[in-house]
Amino acid sequence: MLLSHLFTRTSKDAAADAKSINAELLTRGGFINKTMAGVYSFLPLGLTVLRKIEQIVREEMDAIGGQEVLMSALAPREYWEKTGRWDKKVFEPLFHVPAAGEQEYALNPTHEEIVVPLVAQFVHSYRDLPFGCYQIQTKFRNELRAKSGILRGREFLMKDLYSFHPDAACLDRYYEKVQGAYDKIFQRLELTDRTYLTYASGGSFSPYSHEYQVLLPQGEDAIFVSIEAEKQGKRIAVNREIFDAQKTVCPVTGGKEFREERASEAANIFKLGTKFSEPFKLTFNDEKGAVHPILMGCYGIGISRLMGIIAEAFADKAGLVWPASVAPAQVLIVPLAKDEQEEPFTVAQDLYR
Amino acid sequence: MLLSHLFTRTSKDAAADAKSINAELLTRGGFINKTMAGVYSFLPLGLTVLRKIEQIVREEMDAIGGQEVLMSALAPREYWEKTGRWDKKVFEPLFHVPAAGEQEYALNPTHEEIVVPLVAQFVHSYRDLPFGCYQIQTKFRNELRAKSGILRGREFLMKDLYSFHPDAACLDRYYEKVQGAYDKIFQRLELTDRTYLTYASGGSFSPYSHEYQVLLPQGEDAIFVSIEAEKQGKRIAVNREIFDAQKTVCPVTGGKEFREERASEAANIFKLGTKFSEPFKLTFNDEKGAVHPILMGCYGIGISRLMGIIAEAFADKAGLVWPASVAPAQVLIVPLAKDEQEEPFTVAQDLYR
Repeated sequence: MLLSHLFTRTSKDAAADAKSINAELLTRGGFINKTMAGVYSFLPLGLTVLRKIEQIVREEMDAIGGQEVLMSALAPREYWEKTGRWDKKVFEPLFHVPAAGEQEYALNPTHEEIVVPLVAQFVHSYRDLPFGCYQIQTKFRNELRAKSGILRGREFLMKDLYSFHPDAACLDRYYEKVQGAYDKIFQRLELTDRTYLTYASGGSFSPYSHEYQVLLPQGEDAIFVSIEAEKQGKRIAVNREIFDAQKTVCPVTGGKEFREERASEAANIFKLGTKFSEPFKLTFNDEKGAVHPILMGCYGIGISRLMGIIAEAFADKAGLVWPASVAPAQVLIVPLAKDEQEEPFTVAQDLYR
Repeated sequence: MLLSHLFTRTSKDAAADAKSINAELLTRGGFINKTMAGVYSFLPLGLTVLRKIEQIVREEMDAIGGQEVLMSALAPREYWEKTGRWDKKVFEPLFHVPAAGEQEYALNPTHEEIVVPLVAQFVHSYRDLPFGCYQIQTKFRNELRAKSGILRGREFLMKDLYSFHPDAACLDRYYEKVQGAYDKIFQRLELTDRTYLTYASGGSFSPYSHEYQVLLPQGEDAIFVSIEAEKQGKRIAVNREIFDAQKTVCPVTGGKEFREERASEAANIFKLGTKFSEPFKLTFNDEKGAVHPILMGCYGIGISRLMGIIAEAFADKAGLVWPASVAPAQVLIVPLAKDEQEEPFTVAQDLYR
């Protein structure tokens, strides 16, 4: 890439987005461009970083046997009604899109309503289980406020993996396998030291969900880091939403001491149980022909959000600093002569070629 | 890829989409799955084909110096009002999306309204011109009817390149360069023999736009192929929308004989002139400091549509046939023993590894 050919420029002026550190850094560096609050375009340098993060996530999903698909962004209203989430009182951030022929579509912020009826067309037997499929796809949320740059967008790139199981033990094993893949992803992004496996509210099927929270001074979440876990070399935390200073103990170590930190949620994983299988009648026949609902897990990672997190986590006073694994370039060749005939210029050019 | 691990299956039943040849073939083969009319999810095999088409297009855009970006799918209503295209009477297929805070967003079917204000932030001088930037991105059209599978979707993947120029001669040169890149793309997709450079209606700036129409028995468009051009070894046609049996002559050869064919539009290129530069005040300073509007060209290719076109163009009675360049796999290894201990199975396994 010849920087002199780039149509974008660095800029000292990012006043429009000054409240968000990542937006200011990435805008000034010419990585992103704000279309409107919470909606950004990725410029050549930014897209390169985004694609590198995406590729790391893809490789680790493929390594655990994830099958990549690309599901639609639009969905019929009926699918969302089936799970009760079309109702704005139940799920406020869902965009309802009026369409030709007096239809209304959903603009998907998550894909349980799409993947479950899709899988139900193919999977019927215990022999088809377990498996996981994932996508890396643009999602939409009708956020009332969006002031955190690409950390909380109205439009954002996510990886979402869904897994399907005959029983809870199988789901538990898969859940651990995904945790292993996530650990590798955070390692490759050089975020391991700042990332805490954070226990958050579960659902009817599981007492907890898990978030991968990355410490950031301006992170949107408050988490309580377990001191006892840290002493044992583990990074475990509890999300404020389920933290009770009187009662909470570290779910891993039993420790009672915590330290409050600001953090940003880069990923979350969740045991869904049969919450979505049941409304869509996603079932399987066991060895004896008996019919059971399929158990599910879901595993998200915010790809564009990770780019914002990395920007905030590593930047110094001079501006953006990227881990080598996602840097837009590994080497910058600066010719020390401007005249194309001079040797320093031709040597630089030869190096580049 | 182990076919036995795929969660999808081939199927003999594609009744839901029987009216569209590509949808029937691709659904039966387990390449795509219909979410609703005009909206499809891409399954593992289908996504592999889609990504290969995408990569061919990307390589040829990069080869002519195109700078890849990723623009937002959402846009503020104000941008579309500025060009007069928010009005449903002017541009019917634009989705208007109600959003929090009594806002309304556009769900972009094309990106002139995004790329022009974006470029206007960076480009001010004749020294910045010419250049082209492109994206491969999911677009949305509020189609009243959508019965052609992935040939005409409400949601579809497109490559759109936009070019920026100080004068008409520069735009003409770039336009030809893109034509060369498109020729290479159609060659790599093995579609050259069926693809006609088709003259279609232009705008105020240019008498014609150009479409790349691929002959298909069930194509949505009618084109008139120039017999004289064919005699000279060229594939030139005129779109029915501007064809007049009494007056039309082949714009390349002057020939007056034509043959009507059904075809599907895989790509179109268009000289926009200053149509979008003017409302967004996209201007440049020339060598003497005088200010002029920038001239633009736009160059689309339907990536998901191309997948549908290829499916229809090459299929035979046994089903789908893919050109090697986009086939989901180059080699299929079929073990002739089912027992994993037998030699034909272990040899097959070694071959695969």
